[in-house]
Amino acid sequence: MGWNTWNAFSCNIDEQLILDTAQTIIELGFKDLGYHYVVIDDCWSAGRNSTGHLQPDPNKFPNGMNFLSDKLHSMGLGMGMYSNAGSLTCGRFEGSLGHEQIDAQTFASWGVDYLKYDNCFNEGQSGTPLITYTRYKAMATALNATGRPTLYSICNWGEDYPWKWAQTVGNSWRMSGDIFDTFDKPDARCPCTGEDAFECQLAGWHCSMMNILNKVAMFPDKGVPGGWNDMDMLEIGNGGMTDDEYIVHLSMWAALKSPLIMGNDLRKINAQTLSILSNPAVLAVSQDPISSPAFRRWRYYVGDKDENGQGEIQMWSGDLSGGDMLVVLLNAGNENRNMNATLADIFWDHGPGGTAPQVKQAWDVYDLWASRMDNTTANAIIAAAKANTTAPDNASPFRYNATANGGYAAGLTQNAPALFGKKVGSVQPGGKVTAEVRRHSVAMLRLRAQASPSSTKVEL
Amino acid sequence: MGWNTWNAFSCNIDEQLILDTAQTIIELGFKDLGYHYVVIDDCWSAGRNSTGHLQPDPNKFPNGMNFLSDKLHSMGLGMGMYSNAGSLTCGRFEGSLGHEQIDAQTFASWGVDYLKYDNCFNEGQSGTPLITYTRYKAMATALNATGRPTLYSICNWGEDYPWKWAQTVGNSWRMSGDIFDTFDKPDARCPCTGEDAFECQLAGWHCSMMNILNKVAMFPDKGVPGGWNDMDMLEIGNGGMTDDEYIVHLSMWAALKSPLIMGNDLRKINAQTLSILSNPAVLAVSQDPISSPAFRRWRYYVGDKDENGQGEIQMWSGDLSGGDMLVVLLNAGNENRNMNATLADIFWDHGPGGTAPQVKQAWDVYDLWASRMDNTTANAIIAAAKANTTAPDNASPFRYNATANGGYAAGLTQNAPALFGKKVGSVQPGGKVTAEVRRHSVAMLRLRAQASPSSTKVEL
Amino acid sequence: MGWNTWNAFSCNIDEQLILDTAQTIIELGFKDLGYHYVVIDDCWSAGRNSTGHLQPDPNKFPNGMNFLSDKLHSMGLGMGMYSNAGSLTCGRFEGSLGHEQIDAQTFASWGVDYLKYDNCFNEGQSGTPLITYTRYKAMATALNATGRPTLYSICNWGEDYPWKWAQTVGNSWRMSGDIFDTFDKPDARCPCTGEDAFECQLAGWHCSMMNILNKVAMFPDKGVPGGWNDMDMLEIGNGGMTDDEYIVHLSMWAALKSPLIMGNDLRKINAQTLSILSNPAVLAVSQDPISSPAFRRWRYYVGDKDENGQGEIQMWSGDLSGGDMLVVLLNAGNENRNMNATLADIFWDHGPGGTAPQVKQAWDVYDLWASRMDNTTANAIIAAAKANTTAPDNASPFRYNATANGGYAAGLTQNAPALFGKKVGSVQPGGKVTAEVRRHSVAMLRLRAQASPSSTKVEL
Amino acid sequence: MGWNTWNAFSCNIDEQLILDTAQTIIELGFKDLGYHYVVIDDCWSAGRNSTGHLQPDPNKFPNGMNFLSDKLHSMGLGMGMYSNAGSLTCGRFEGSLGHEQIDAQTFASWGVDYLKYDNCFNEGQSGTPLITYTRYKAMATALNATGRPTLYSICNWGEDYPWKWAQTVGNSWRMSGDIFDTFDKPDARCPCTGEDAFECQLAGWHCSMMNILNKVAMFPDKGVPGGWNDMDMLEIGNGGMTDDEYIVHLSMWAALKSPLIMGNDLRKINAQTLSILSNPAVLAVSQDPISSPAFRRWRYYVGDKDENGQGEIQMWSGDLSGGDMLVVLLNAGNENRNMNATLADIFWDHGPGGTAPQVKQAWDVYDLWASRMDNTTANAIIAAAKANTTAPDNASPFRYNATANGGYAAGLTQNAPALFGKKVGSVQPGGKVTAEVRRHSVAMLRLRAQASPSSTKVEL
Repeated sequence: MGWNTWNAFSCNIDEQLILDTAQTIIELGFKDLGYHYVVIDDCWSAGRNSTGHLQPDPNKFPNGMNFLSDKLHSMGLGMGMYSNAGSLTCGRFEGSLGHEQIDAQTFASWGVDYLKYDNCFNEGQSGTPLITYTRYKAMATALNATGRPTLYSICNWGEDYPWKWAQTVGNSWRMSGDIFDTFDKPDARCPCTGEDAFECQLAGWHCSMMNILNKVAMFPDKGVPGGWNDMDMLEIGNGGMTDDEYIVHLSMWAALKSPLIMGNDLRKINAQTLSILSNPAVLAVSQDPISSPAFRRWRYYVGDKDENGQGEIQMWSGDLSGGDMLVVLLNAGNENRNMNATLADIFWDHGPGGTAPQVKQAWDVYDLWASRMDNTTANAIIAAAKANTTAPDNASPFRYNATANGGYAAGLTQNAPALFGKKVGSVQPGGKVTAEVRRHSVAMLRLRAQASPSSTKVEL
Repeated sequence: MGWNTWNAFSCNIDEQLILDTAQTIIELGFKDLGYHYVVIDDCWSAGRNSTGHLQPDPNKFPNGMNFLSDKLHSMGLGMGMYSNAGSLTCGRFEGSLGHEQIDAQTFASWGVDYLKYDNCFNEGQSGTPLITYTRYKAMATALNATGRPTLYSICNWGEDYPWKWAQTVGNSWRMSGDIFDTFDKPDARCPCTGEDAFECQLAGWHCSMMNILNKVAMFPDKGVPGGWNDMDMLEIGNGGMTDDEYIVHLSMWAALKSPLIMGNDLRKINAQTLSILSNPAVLAVSQDPISSPAFRRWRYYVGDKDENGQGEIQMWSGDLSGGDMLVVLLNAGNENRNMNATLADIFWDHGPGGTAPQVKQAWDVYDLWASRMDNTTANAIIAAAKANTTAPDNASPFRYNATANGGYAAGLTQNAPALFGKKVGSVQPGGKVTAEVRRHSVAMLRLRAQASPSSTKVEL
Repeated sequence: MGWNTWNAFSCNIDEQLILDTAQTIIELGFKDLGYHYVVIDDCWSAGRNSTGHLQPDPNKFPNGMNFLSDKLHSMGLGMGMYSNAGSLTCGRFEGSLGHEQIDAQTFASWGVDYLKYDNCFNEGQSGTPLITYTRYKAMATALNATGRPTLYSICNWGEDYPWKWAQTVGNSWRMSGDIFDTFDKPDARCPCTGEDAFECQLAGWHCSMMNILNKVAMFPDKGVPGGWNDMDMLEIGNGGMTDDEYIVHLSMWAALKSPLIMGNDLRKINAQTLSILSNPAVLAVSQDPISSPAFRRWRYYVGDKDENGQGEIQMWSGDLSGGDMLVVLLNAGNENRNMNATLADIFWDHGPGGTAPQVKQAWDVYDLWASRMDNTTANAIIAAAKANTTAPDNASPFRYNATANGGYAAGLTQNAPALFGKKVGSVQPGGKVTAEVRRHSVAMLRLRAQASPSSTKVEL
Repeated sequence: MGWNTWNAFSCNIDEQLILDTAQTIIELGFKDLGYHYVVIDDCWSAGRNSTGHLQPDPNKFPNGMNFLSDKLHSMGLGMGMYSNAGSLTCGRFEGSLGHEQIDAQTFASWGVDYLKYDNCFNEGQSGTPLITYTRYKAMATALNATGRPTLYSICNWGEDYPWKWAQTVGNSWRMSGDIFDTFDKPDARCPCTGEDAFECQLAGWHCSMMNILNKVAMFPDKGVPGGWNDMDMLEIGNGGMTDDEYIVHLSMWAALKSPLIMGNDLRKINAQTLSILSNPAVLAVSQDPISSPAFRRWRYYVGDKDENGQGEIQMWSGDLSGGDMLVVLLNAGNENRNMNATLADIFWDHGPGGTAPQVKQAWDVYDLWASRMDNTTANAIIAAAKANTTAPDNASPFRYNATANGGYAAGLTQNAPALFGKKVGSVQPGGKVTAEVRRHSVAMLRLRAQASPSSTKVEL
């Protein structure tokens, strides 16, 4: 979890932006929700000096990178940087291919805690998993050799099936082309859309949120603790989607255990964006201690297509700690609809055809978006942050201070109310979960086993 | 033929389970039907010791592996184990990549007769047949160097077309993602379903039985004596399919000459499961001395789709010893139906367009499921096994003791009745075989040439 | 052009069969039509001797291979043999992979003029053009090093795109899976049927004649003088197709400049088979001196599907020597039909959209099948051959003796009537060629420029 | 920009053709429009001499290549030549594979400024980006080592995804099979037509203009300053398309920043061809200083299919210098139609869903084809060139002399009228651009921001 400069600022970055954003991360309560890394993406560089060491752009970073990392560390945040496994970065600054050791040492000497490592201008070094693995492994080895723990974020756009090999190389790997701030609009530049999209040789960019979701649906299990599918950085708050669509965005990224890297201008955040990104009940799914991604149980195309010609509904479910179960009913059709999911489908992996023991149980249903922070509270937090006062996060029933409470695992064990949204009903043995789901939105539900079977049908 | 821990127990294994199961294999008569290997799948390991040798988990296997193999050998069974051609096993225990020699020696020293060799965490060593071949060949060479004959079961999920190269490396090779205990339900995690599924770059898991069958249909001939397509372990008895669906499962695995590795909890076997897994007439197809897989002659989609949206019918046929012919009419539609197959189609490979001499002949038709053991007999066998008495297998007309009778080849030569099911009709020259086939079931028929042409139409 | 043992005899071969067939080739006039190589396919071997040299099976070839090649050479025929670029041949005899030099020397010492080099058990040496090229180039280099001119027939089933690299390695390359003696019946074992079939990773076998034709349609131009697409050996006379279908077979193989290797039992040839294989007007297309393959100009699916569910029509055209033009109207629908082709489409490559100068010309139309030898004549030839008398081929107006006449090039220059079939009409400038084409047959037409434009519409 | 021998003359080339064409390039004003390189394609060679140096064919080029380059240089033009990254060229002359250094030195010694480097007979050296990269990089290294600046035009037909690696190797790379002079007629020999056409393993030839356009649509962004997608040489003037279709051809090649290499016989140019190739307003898009390719914003199939069975409409837009925006409405349907594009779609990349600030602005609309040179003027220029007098290009309001005016960048800055076509209307904030677009033609429009919002709807 963290924040990255690219989606909102691309190359227009400097020291002040980083420091202001870091301060805002703390004041808005994001740090205490777990957002930790502040990542400087492409365009920070002034090339190599006479000894071959990378140099920061002195206009953008006049005090150098150690100054910045010291500041971030003193705030309790992590410092992230960017380089590229090619001769040039995507923005055509110096790349690290063939310079892995010296660059890793430079980053370590700068106090860097996180490295995003991109894939442009890679000099033809792709085409089989082995070729790409070797290129990315070189930087992993170099980072490890520095002795400084560095989260290694592989960004090779899913080329050469990183989900086949990256678990032992890095901490996450991008599995698609770049995200664009749109719910489901197709774009010629993100061409792989079918059921064999995982074989795509042109990852592309301007991929919609739904495009990425439907790509990862084939291999959520490739993520393991310490090595995750990266669905790309969040667009929440950048303006291209509706509030409901951004709810889908965070819900699915959390359900899939994708890294959650904010990509908006935090200095100008509004109440709706704050309340989405701050929802502790959803973040607790992302950070669940058993680290089990959700799987898509079904997908149907529907007739109510939206203005982009798309229309479908999906159901996802996944194990949560404490024997709980996540259920996400996704309505990507153009109309609000009543949706439902049978326990047999929800617990499919625990026993096919309704044979899972969980199907014979009764469950309470918690709506993880029902206790979303109201706008009044959110605006108060934003106003406090602008006034450089401490955010009243712990005072709010909608907030969760992971720092103060020993992380999400502790909160889940202690049944911290903020992590469970609101109880909205129950489901009897062999029954089904139902929910009204708005157009382009989700019902994100947490099922907890009842002590004894209930005969009450769930009413959401 | 054998049994493996994974499908029923995954990581929950120990010495007692192995020994109990071995004992049950004998008492239920499975050993005498040819089920020979008892295979310990993943999660047995405690990593490497200071000399780099793999160690069994002392809690699960307190008496070590030699104790276990001695026991199995003394029972007349073979000992199978599991490792992985990667840095870690799928369950993230130590893998054998780069340790092939020492691990092969360890397995030999433990008296191992069978090695299943998996494909997780393979450090990018995939992408062309040559890369994968080299990785799997390394273990083949190491096993051969030990001097101990070891059946080598390659489990690389069909990646890089093992049917192109594995015949000279191992004894079998998985040709798909992992099976799941469902007849035909699609799952997003097993994405390759079309006519080019053999090119799949994401083998996946949770593949249905029909999914695997339809994948192997394109290349049954790649199996040769001593090197077979492995359609994955049996799910029979695990509860996710109906009795008829499990009949399809065993029938097709036998017809295709896939390894038959039971995957259920034998200690809790019920009568239906026993009578399927014990059908000697079907097992005799699997173990037929001419080792010729069946081929799919036709496939039609049908309108009566099942609850999973699937519906199709197929006809398979294949040469059997003694000039016999196997015919399987598979009804994967949602309704019972009358099916038929012409001799021209059945004997297509012997001469296209009805030109095969066999088409001009009359045939008797044997239904290989018609003499399935009844539940009373099966329950008696189960009860006897629970009482640790000898199973009355030889007393039953439904049983075949391959051990006592010199194997299936001898029984076929001697026309042992148990290997031929029940004669249900005949088919005249140029005619067609017909059968009523229940929903999600098969008619599995053995054709034997009549001495002279018959004018009786087959009545099944 | 030649004959090969496999399609009719597979492994049931011996010296006598070769000698009898060679004698028949001469007596039936095939030699004088240009059929030159007598090829012994798989199953001739008895493995390697103590010096590592391949040995012929002493039961099948008791007098050794030099005896046989001396006999063939004395008859004026070429001797062809078979080996395999793998550890074993497809029939699991010794392969030549890693033994290229010694085996090439052996073949040269045996007087071999032609080597078919197969692709089984290739030890994973495939997956990129470079890997496969290297494997096949090794034998090319070895053959060249012997100093004996040897026609090198690459048989790697189209894997790794031999049409990208084989022109500088061998004289022909198979571009598909094995042919089966059927017009268009689909078979699960020959799975690539779509418009991307050229990318097939499972060449398969039991490919229908139409399947192969539709695969090669995408790249006829990859054949160059001295290096040709090999559409596999002929099935003409083996009984699985109708007379019309075999007409299509020879017509298209000739139009595409595929090697013409007979695959039937010549000792039992009937009149129809003889008259197809002997049609000099069609063979003159195959052996045309400008060596330009025909191209498919259009393809339409039609509603009258045949019993295999197939139905389509196609038009092919290609340059011939003397400024002539080949036109093939292929009716693969289920009904006889009137077909036509515009000069604009026929001469498309000479100027798109009707801009070719040839479109403004008038043409005479010759039907290359109209002068097919009648059955009486054919039976007389067959009877003479059985009586070991000389075939009266030169006496017949339907025959052409390429040997006596200096080859096809000379005959074309001299307007030898046998090479032009029968004039059946003409086509005016800007007009269209029309023909009645029977179900599963072709009109194979040769257009010759008229001295001056004609106003007569073609009547076929 | 330049001219190449192949499309109009293939192998029928000689010194006189080159010199005549060069003279014509100057006299028709093409040189002053920026057409600079005169490229001798395949078939110039007489092989290597005893020192291994390539020699020009003495019949075609009796005075040698230095004579020719001196002449071209004295005219202020660049000299282009052709070789091939294989053992032979496509026309089967000597190739440069393995001779990169000596051949690069030869070309440099001949004064060559531009090298087209083809892909035939490449000895299996393809199959992964790395293999192909290495082969093409060898010539890049050799060219650089000569010290002579040489534009390096990679012609490997898009194999192995040159858009992944060629930016750091050459100045442009072909991304498809060879163009043929047809608008949209499908051809079996150019088989990849679907949405995954970028993965094509058979680039083929006889690709229609629309085929190439639809292939490049997925990756225009892969072109960067100094390294461009090459959509192949222009067919304008060769006769296979209509005037409108050639307008589409130049418009799209310019919009995509493809190299503009004329391929017609300039000595026989007619007025229509001259006025298309000379349109400075379109050439200014090609040579725009910010070098930003247009992107396809939408594509719809339409019911009015043409005689080739094709029918679709598309909208493209792309950034131009000065904050201007290019909009191309492409009508590839069979009927004239009214088309429109919303500002939201046009400025999609500047902010999805209409959020771009540009959407809130008013724009003037310039039609870049509205000031196309009239036939009287064009014929006068052609007549003058035939009389070897200077073309009156600067006198015409339809011409632009880039030489005299310091290039297109200067002209754009100075608002040179010839670079802006004709103002035809305006569009209000949040509005849409509309245009009548003829069958198989485009409206190519340049949007310039108004000083203040306009309420006038655009009338074209």
